[in-house]
Amino acid sequence: MKQNITTGSFPSSKKIFVKGKLHNIEVAMREIQLSSSKDKDGNVYQNEPVTVYDTSGAYTDDNYQVDLNRGLPRLRREWILQRDDVQELDGLSSEYGQMRLADPSLDSLRFEHINTRPLRAKQGHCVTQYFYAKQGIITPEMEYVAIRENQRIDELKEKYTQHKGCPLGANIPETHITPEFVRDEIARGRAFLAANINHPETEPMIIGRNFLVKINANIGNSPTTSSIEEEVEKAVWAFRWGADTIMDLSTGKNIHETREWIIRNSPVPVGTVPLYQALEKIDGDVTKLSWEIYRDTLIEQCEQGVDYFTIHAGLLWKHIPATLHRTTGIVSRGGAIMAKWILQHRQENFLYTHFDEICEILAAYDVGVSLGDGLRPGCIADANDRAQFGELDVLGELTQIARRHFVQVIVEGPGHVPMHLIEENMKRQLEVCDEAPFYTLGPLVCDIAPGYDHITSAIGGAMIAWQGTSMLCYVTQKEHLGLPDKQDVREGVITFKLAAHAADLAKGFPGAQYRDNAMSKARFEFRWRDQFALALDSEKAMQFHDHTLPDEGYKSTHYCSMCGEHFCSMRASMQVRELAAEQQMDNVDIYS
Amino acid sequence: MKQNITTGSFPSSKKIFVKGKLHNIEVAMREIQLSSSKDKDGNVYQNEPVTVYDTSGAYTDDNYQVDLNRGLPRLRREWILQRDDVQELDGLSSEYGQMRLADPSLDSLRFEHINTRPLRAKQGHCVTQYFYAKQGIITPEMEYVAIRENQRIDELKEKYTQHKGCPLGANIPETHITPEFVRDEIARGRAFLAANINHPETEPMIIGRNFLVKINANIGNSPTTSSIEEEVEKAVWAFRWGADTIMDLSTGKNIHETREWIIRNSPVPVGTVPLYQALEKIDGDVTKLSWEIYRDTLIEQCEQGVDYFTIHAGLLWKHIPATLHRTTGIVSRGGAIMAKWILQHRQENFLYTHFDEICEILAAYDVGVSLGDGLRPGCIADANDRAQFGELDVLGELTQIARRHFVQVIVEGPGHVPMHLIEENMKRQLEVCDEAPFYTLGPLVCDIAPGYDHITSAIGGAMIAWQGTSMLCYVTQKEHLGLPDKQDVREGVITFKLAAHAADLAKGFPGAQYRDNAMSKARFEFRWRDQFALALDSEKAMQFHDHTLPDEGYKSTHYCSMCGEHFCSMRASMQVRELAAEQQMDNVDIYS
Repeated sequence: MKQNITTGSFPSSKKIFVKGKLHNIEVAMREIQLSSSKDKDGNVYQNEPVTVYDTSGAYTDDNYQVDLNRGLPRLRREWILQRDDVQELDGLSSEYGQMRLADPSLDSLRFEHINTRPLRAKQGHCVTQYFYAKQGIITPEMEYVAIRENQRIDELKEKYTQHKGCPLGANIPETHITPEFVRDEIARGRAFLAANINHPETEPMIIGRNFLVKINANIGNSPTTSSIEEEVEKAVWAFRWGADTIMDLSTGKNIHETREWIIRNSPVPVGTVPLYQALEKIDGDVTKLSWEIYRDTLIEQCEQGVDYFTIHAGLLWKHIPATLHRTTGIVSRGGAIMAKWILQHRQENFLYTHFDEICEILAAYDVGVSLGDGLRPGCIADANDRAQFGELDVLGELTQIARRHFVQVIVEGPGHVPMHLIEENMKRQLEVCDEAPFYTLGPLVCDIAPGYDHITSAIGGAMIAWQGTSMLCYVTQKEHLGLPDKQDVREGVITFKLAAHAADLAKGFPGAQYRDNAMSKARFEFRWRDQFALALDSEKAMQFHDHTLPDEGYKSTHYCSMCGEHFCSMRASMQVRELAAEQQMDNVDIYS
Repeated sequence: MKQNITTGSFPSSKKIFVKGKLHNIEVAMREIQLSSSKDKDGNVYQNEPVTVYDTSGAYTDDNYQVDLNRGLPRLRREWILQRDDVQELDGLSSEYGQMRLADPSLDSLRFEHINTRPLRAKQGHCVTQYFYAKQGIITPEMEYVAIRENQRIDELKEKYTQHKGCPLGANIPETHITPEFVRDEIARGRAFLAANINHPETEPMIIGRNFLVKINANIGNSPTTSSIEEEVEKAVWAFRWGADTIMDLSTGKNIHETREWIIRNSPVPVGTVPLYQALEKIDGDVTKLSWEIYRDTLIEQCEQGVDYFTIHAGLLWKHIPATLHRTTGIVSRGGAIMAKWILQHRQENFLYTHFDEICEILAAYDVGVSLGDGLRPGCIADANDRAQFGELDVLGELTQIARRHFVQVIVEGPGHVPMHLIEENMKRQLEVCDEAPFYTLGPLVCDIAPGYDHITSAIGGAMIAWQGTSMLCYVTQKEHLGLPDKQDVREGVITFKLAAHAADLAKGFPGAQYRDNAMSKARFEFRWRDQFALALDSEKAMQFHDHTLPDEGYKSTHYCSMCGEHFCSMRASMQVRELAAEQQMDNVDIYS
């Protein structure tokens, strides 16, 4: 494969690695270097660098030589083997996987260093992080996420709050995120640490409402297809801008081979909807869909390293009548397929009837289940209806079944919901699903803004994340209209990143506001380059600034083209401070 | 002037005019024609047209010949004169206005049919809508807004709910908006009907929390200037996409002449910050700023037809110390200027000390006051601080003074506020300002997304509008970085339109959801052209759709490139309905 992907560090940034205390681990983060400032007396001082959470993997490490043909380093391989509870299989267990491997016509598409000996739990062992947590074991993965979530705030807090130039860290609360806390949250089923034993390339991350809010980006080709190389670049691109997980929703040809390339090169957990591939195998003919085909697809993907599966097991025969008079019926792809299957076969949803077997398979690889909301509302008119909440009750039931198998669970949520009905979704989900992490698609707060649905959904997403949703699935501006391209993916990721961050701020997550404070200080001091470096999308911020004032000299001027020199409020505000100092107003409290 | 502006009706739409009952008035609206559908039995039926609120003025009326040199028709001229409480002056009252008029070098810039005989209240009369409302008078303006806010929902409700093809109007509540209700809301100071007697071109609109949420777009050149023609086009462009009011924040040269062109061609109320022009007159030198210069500027703009002024009268000497240790000081341009003035002159804010005189001037023309929040927070760290709320208390005091003069009042609000602190802003404002309409700039819910601040602010905007804010000032994606161009204005307007609409939905505004329902039905039936027509930005929706499927044939296909044919959930959902009908599941309630 060609290596035409986006790499390179972010502006003014470098990768740093923070060592573990319990385990021999190194947690990757991004450190943003800032320039210096002057205090009131004219003395120059250095602004502290800012450490931030980084999803971009080795691709932004200038000391790392990317080679897509080899895949990323297997960070977790030793951790997994040292637990001594997995076996290396002699070959692939899935028939389909074996067939694809044996087909020489696919040689040119196949990942070069493909692992034909996947791992599986030894007989009688359970290898899920949930199981370990229940046993009281703090795994290296758990310590990794504890360190990662803290973004060094525990270590830097004193520096941030005592800094003599300008203490930006006032009011940073004590961090609650310890390795033991991580273990406890997982053990309670309130957090999900996605970690397929066949995806050792992941940098561990956690999804739960007492952690940073995460976002997922959907990628994948549709029948109007793109090449494998394009798909890998789309994934790397999504990591770069901030995707905490990706879902590969490919529905075209060569899904199997494309997925292998993506997983081997992905530092973030990868989710899929196995139903899509199962259906592709029978040319989209739902009448031919069976538990056997589905089961083989599950095993195929477990052994490739998919970290979580969306499974639409909660949509039952009894729910279908409640969808018939909806304004937009069933808008989940998986939901619509399963409803069709139920009616065509006049049988209950096989994902529901086989859910115990599904969990047994997943537990053997530590693949998580994301309980699909096949009946999520597709419009404002259908929000919070009987179909939706009827299915949610079943998702609660399935959560308990999964837990009995020690399978990690997250629960998917809407969809289209007006603002005043959002809270009910969160409350019911927490109650019905016993606090399993909620993973929502937006919700979109109105229906009439096609072309802007990344925004209608970011509004609902920020609100529901504040209320307790753990991960937001991004929506791009092409939603309802077409397949997103690379720029749409970037805009979608950044939009959801800002929504998630807004929720982190509202929840008072320890240290979350530090980056905002550093940005605001840079803004007030007209340190333009520092503003760009601290921005979620440095490139766009700089491009917009430079659009009207491109000259290098304008990177240090005390105004921008928005207000111009005379009318820059921050410039005037600086002058106010000088005048106030002259009048010795600075420390006088004359406020009534 | 050249006539190079954007005109023409919206897709599938025409202007309609609804007659008044109390007054001889015609209220302009937009009617969107939809195509037909088939019912379950295959019978074709016509979908009802949808009537929507329309800010675009005559520019989208295909029966109207636009002539910028003449300006728009003076819709309200007769209504104003018939009240017999105004006098036509012999000439302009402002010295500056007279000077500009007498300057032959400005002839080429001047609006051709300039009115040199402005109107003013007759001695001993008050001409504000607030005064009339207090007297129990329902003006034509009040009836106009009552009809306009209802979007014919009272008349169409039966059709919408009884329509035999598909009743989309279920649950439309009885409308509460009658002319008498409008009068009462204005009389209580809970609503603001912007209507300078010298701006008879406006199509009356109302700002208040029991009405549709409105949005304002800021336009205006900055010293990196643009031409008058560009400015007029920028205004017409903003109306087209949905600006309910515009604020002309020009700070360059020829502000006076540019404003005349804009007002004469504006069907929406125009606001300004008179301080900006006053400062331009003295070359930006704050030390020279005086009440006399400011007063003459007020009169100049009152007689041109500005409908409301932002006045930073609430920022007092005592508040300044509380800003000195803020992270971003004073970020309001007007606020920073006044703080500088206070310190330089060692006097109290002259806008505060002269507030009674200001109100007397405004009342004579029915110009409203928008109490500026000079101390709004410019970053998350400064939100809801002592400076901000200290000033808000003074704005409450000024609200009462304005009301004593029968001047209509709105109150400006933040700014940068994290989600969990938004509600306090709304509650305090309602309490302190005795329910005067709140008009906020976002708020932005985080600081780290420059390039995406239309979104960070739309999140806060939607939330605070749901809680009771009456008008949102848009923020463009260039915020903090540079001057917005035309496309930024469009994106900003649509973004705030969707945020405002989301709030209308959440508030259950009568009929607001009908357009969403019509959109969702069109979506489910793959009526692509109807979807585009119903979208807030029809052009962009079509452009995105056509990006991957440009052929005309794809305007009627039952899928789009997002999921492709096999995986289209709505297509599958249609098939579910057919299967369910075969199994006579349709009317059986088998739900547990």
